[in-house]
Amino acid sequence: ADPEAGKAKSATCVACHGADGISPNPLWPNLAGQKDQYLVKQMKAFRDGDRKDPLMTPMAAGLSDEDIANLAAYYSGL
Amino acid sequence: ADPEAGKAKSATCVACHGADGISPNPLWPNLAGQKDQYLVKQMKAFRDGDRKDPLMTPMAAGLSDEDIANLAAYYSGL
Repeated sequence: ADPEAGKAKSATCVACHGADGISPNPLWPNLAGQKDQYLVKQMKAFRDGDRKDPLMTPMAAGLSDEDIANLAAYYSGL
Repeated sequence: ADPEAGKAKSATCVACHGADGISPNPLWPNLAGQKDQYLVKQMKAFRDGDRKDPLMTPMAAGLSDEDIANLAAYYSGL
């Protein structure tokens, strides 16, 4: 996976998850340093409807498996 | 909330989430330093069936709101 491509893709994530992956809101999870496969599993769950959230569902809808792998590589590496 | 009581309650969590809240498995999330209200929301979701996971559902089943608040205080403080 390509963390740089993940960083580029993360522009829409920053508002809730923070520019450095530390969320500005106690209700939204930090992503910095989180486990990569866990992140992949949750993004796919939001995309495929196994996990539902009014904010995350639309965000994950357009992500490809490659986007997801790159985003997970980026955030797990922070 | 009482982080010390949360620490005592966390004995059953350690196997998957690590003694220091850093998970030994790339599929299981780190909890150390995670946002407290996010942790509360997810533990309640697992307990009340809004979020399902074969491992977490039974773990959360017996937790009281107080347990959940204490566990969230403990892990968010790590």
